[in-house]
Amino acid sequence: MSTPAFADGATTTPVNERLKGYSYPLSARGVANLAPTPPWHYVGDVVGVEFWTTPAAAAASLPTGLDPDPASSGHGYALFIDWQFSASDNTYLDPVRSQYSEFLVLLDAVHKGSPVAWCPFIYVDNDEALARGWIQGFPKKIGAVHQTRAFGVPSQAGPVVGPGGRFGATLSSNGRQLAQAQVTLEKTAPTIPALGRPIVNLRHFPRLTKGQYENPAVHELTQSVLDTPQVAGTWTGTGELSFFPAQAEELADLAPQRTGAGFRGSLSYSVTDLIIL
Amino acid sequence: MSTPAFADGATTTPVNERLKGYSYPLSARGVANLAPTPPWHYVGDVVGVEFWTTPAAAAASLPTGLDPDPASSGHGYALFIDWQFSASDNTYLDPVRSQYSEFLVLLDAVHKGSPVAWCPFIYVDNDEALARGWIQGFPKKIGAVHQTRAFGVPSQAGPVVGPGGRFGATLSSNGRQLAQAQVTLEKTAPTIPALGRPIVNLRHFPRLTKGQYENPAVHELTQSVLDTPQVAGTWTGTGELSFFPAQAEELADLAPQRTGAGFRGSLSYSVTDLIIL
Amino acid sequence: MSTPAFADGATTTPVNERLKGYSYPLSARGVANLAPTPPWHYVGDVVGVEFWTTPAAAAASLPTGLDPDPASSGHGYALFIDWQFSASDNTYLDPVRSQYSEFLVLLDAVHKGSPVAWCPFIYVDNDEALARGWIQGFPKKIGAVHQTRAFGVPSQAGPVVGPGGRFGATLSSNGRQLAQAQVTLEKTAPTIPALGRPIVNLRHFPRLTKGQYENPAVHELTQSVLDTPQVAGTWTGTGELSFFPAQAEELADLAPQRTGAGFRGSLSYSVTDLIIL
Amino acid sequence: MSTPAFADGATTTPVNERLKGYSYPLSARGVANLAPTPPWHYVGDVVGVEFWTTPAAAAASLPTGLDPDPASSGHGYALFIDWQFSASDNTYLDPVRSQYSEFLVLLDAVHKGSPVAWCPFIYVDNDEALARGWIQGFPKKIGAVHQTRAFGVPSQAGPVVGPGGRFGATLSSNGRQLAQAQVTLEKTAPTIPALGRPIVNLRHFPRLTKGQYENPAVHELTQSVLDTPQVAGTWTGTGELSFFPAQAEELADLAPQRTGAGFRGSLSYSVTDLIIL
Repeated sequence: MSTPAFADGATTTPVNERLKGYSYPLSARGVANLAPTPPWHYVGDVVGVEFWTTPAAAAASLPTGLDPDPASSGHGYALFIDWQFSASDNTYLDPVRSQYSEFLVLLDAVHKGSPVAWCPFIYVDNDEALARGWIQGFPKKIGAVHQTRAFGVPSQAGPVVGPGGRFGATLSSNGRQLAQAQVTLEKTAPTIPALGRPIVNLRHFPRLTKGQYENPAVHELTQSVLDTPQVAGTWTGTGELSFFPAQAEELADLAPQRTGAGFRGSLSYSVTDLIIL
Repeated sequence: MSTPAFADGATTTPVNERLKGYSYPLSARGVANLAPTPPWHYVGDVVGVEFWTTPAAAAASLPTGLDPDPASSGHGYALFIDWQFSASDNTYLDPVRSQYSEFLVLLDAVHKGSPVAWCPFIYVDNDEALARGWIQGFPKKIGAVHQTRAFGVPSQAGPVVGPGGRFGATLSSNGRQLAQAQVTLEKTAPTIPALGRPIVNLRHFPRLTKGQYENPAVHELTQSVLDTPQVAGTWTGTGELSFFPAQAEELADLAPQRTGAGFRGSLSYSVTDLIIL
Repeated sequence: MSTPAFADGATTTPVNERLKGYSYPLSARGVANLAPTPPWHYVGDVVGVEFWTTPAAAAASLPTGLDPDPASSGHGYALFIDWQFSASDNTYLDPVRSQYSEFLVLLDAVHKGSPVAWCPFIYVDNDEALARGWIQGFPKKIGAVHQTRAFGVPSQAGPVVGPGGRFGATLSSNGRQLAQAQVTLEKTAPTIPALGRPIVNLRHFPRLTKGQYENPAVHELTQSVLDTPQVAGTWTGTGELSFFPAQAEELADLAPQRTGAGFRGSLSYSVTDLIIL
Repeated sequence: MSTPAFADGATTTPVNERLKGYSYPLSARGVANLAPTPPWHYVGDVVGVEFWTTPAAAAASLPTGLDPDPASSGHGYALFIDWQFSASDNTYLDPVRSQYSEFLVLLDAVHKGSPVAWCPFIYVDNDEALARGWIQGFPKKIGAVHQTRAFGVPSQAGPVVGPGGRFGATLSSNGRQLAQAQVTLEKTAPTIPALGRPIVNLRHFPRLTKGQYENPAVHELTQSVLDTPQVAGTWTGTGELSFFPAQAEELADLAPQRTGAGFRGSLSYSVTDLIIL
């Protein structure tokens, strides 16, 4: 690890490593790793609810380097997403690995004067998704996330994708429900409301060496880069949202005081880069 | 239990029972039961592969009362279905309970001279679905079932629903993979191939009283009744299918010798009745 | 099904069936069924709490044929058990199938003047255990059950099995927490408190034929028979217990008003019989 | 991140961060993080099998900086461990979070001339355990791990802890079985065979910034430090072990050529430090 360093420690030459792969576990052939080398391709269905928590709660969730957005203090979104992932090898043909469901909160914030979205909490049901998230700075935990689906045939077992169509969504972790939402569609919309701001995360990897617990090996604000984002089928309407307290969780500290739009749509993008702020 | 009896033991007056509900657990308010009183509404996406196992293997899987179909000996279908269920209370708004995934095999057979489909093995990932299945005669076990999904926005993370679109599917139970399939779409089709025959099951509920293990309390061939079935978005093409052996499983005894059509489509129906044969 | 019948419809000659096995799914070789022919052997660690719910709630949970116990109205036990099961084939060597965790409530009741224990709600995390339970009359649903374990080596990561040792336990289903308990040990005890009464269940299997929803095919009170029960390592002390409400659940209707003993011990028995009351 | 740096980038003053916690997710109150600040206490039951893979396979699994051990080329252990974890807050009272099961392989290797154990693959069923592992350099993936348990009461549902006692164990990930073992006990032993060498890991955290995929932010050999290790109840005997191939896995590349001792015992230790090599 003696290569020349950038300000953030980035080396200019590849690490000298016999094992292959991008992430844990590095291995002889390089196919066992949880997150392969990008590009990473994503497509998903989103059910979301706009909400306002108290400005104090929102501010308390921000890392050093981000400030509350004075124009929209306490404003944010709760998103439930059924994702399908693929690396360059058509991972989507192995759905047991490539599909996962995600819940995240995005809160309005400001970074050096620019509006951004901050993700305090995010849950997925898949270890490959958790690994990719950590590398991006998304602080993912494992949870169980479900959203009502719409199907291409009429049925009393599913909602219409149209006026009056209702979609439920839930999050639990460790067998404790953390969030519940319901969205009622009213009209089409050109895009998914929550996507208006760049997402800023706090990439973090601790040190375990005694005396250095408070000096993480990686601790840096990052900005996500979404390549070729596309949305389709977006509907908006009304939404209900509740967060519930549980051991070792702080999501309920961001309890919604009121909700705004509920919405649903489809989304795809690729990831090949990350900006270190 | 002293009410008058039909030939099959059916009583003509309701059972005298203070507890409410249709299935386990009966309870004070009748809302805790796994399967509520019908109607039961279903909507799902199907990925399936037509296959031929050996005539001997197919014949060995048939219960007394069913015979091999001489016109199509060994012919059947493997179906992977992402379901959403709803009783009359819009259960679909609670997706953690109402969604489930299913794998089943249907084999051609004959009942009293009429062509039927026999389901030797079926797996779901949800106890409410297991309970409804047992009541219908579907011999459901718990398994993990996944199929590639298509989304309403272009992406390298998902297949097109069109020529060349590929969909993978897997089944495992107890952490052991039991089946794997891949379908490549070629052209649209008017219906889902596997739905041409009525499904006949063996409804069965054992006795545990010593000396009566071989005298089940319920043991009767049944014919499923699907109300208002609808299909949409069906595509057919080619399919690959493999079954794998595992402890306490016999699915691999029906190993595909060759495959026919692969297909994908959406399906809905309701259930309110069952014919006892 | 035209064989001579007992009062309860039991036949005197074995059913004429080509397929083999005891429970779903019957099959060519008879090894795929969820519950094989008894004997069924069980061994487990129990964490339990004695409690009193309101007499009204306890009475409302009783099926026709059982009455409240006037001597102990509202009294019962909540049990969390880490089980290992084996049929006659040493199933315990395949722990992914043979191990499971269980939560159940037992309430004092009276059957024809005799004290019995009634199980209104029970949850397991394994489909083979669910199948065996249904056959016995236990109205099992799938849940996630966990209890603190003790180990044979000192550690700050586990309690002592001795005075002051504390054990936690939780139940959730569909990602919603339904019960939580904590037990603090004080002194050894000769047996596990909850085992003093025979367990009476309501064995039940519905009919789906239209017009017969209220005439279940099987609906009978049963009494469990535990062969060669053995207990060891029992400690008693104090206990805390909470039930939490959730969609499609009624456990919280039996909310503890106060608790009595907390306890922990090991238990084994076999099952080969069931008494139909 | 402009604090003075060690050779490896370690800072001498704590990072300036308003959010609290040790690992993802940092938060307002610091209780939501997956891995809290050490100490971390562990206690578990181990079922293990000594084995030899080919020297070539073992050598190919080693990272730069480790070499094959010429004295024991290809030699290693497969361990299945049922763990209970606790931080300083008695986490063991919340068993849904604190209990987990683990599978790992340890292979003999040499670091700068000293014998060490290298862990190429490790699986757990709990995200908190995964997070702690990554911080230590253990390349954990999510898997399902089960081992036969012994209980403190005689039963046909469990093995004796004594001569002839048999214990099975399995690993699967993504519904595919990756490993299976069986151990037969013969005699007591003073310690658990696999613990004779210090464990060396490759701590690794990638970069996602374009152009820097091959320059991980963290990439360093580490040596685990186990505080106050204790073992008890160790028995050794014979063992069987199989690895199975699966998509995106390389465990089967280390297929056992022959096995040595099988063993079982209990183990506890604490973790408060990590040596960077």
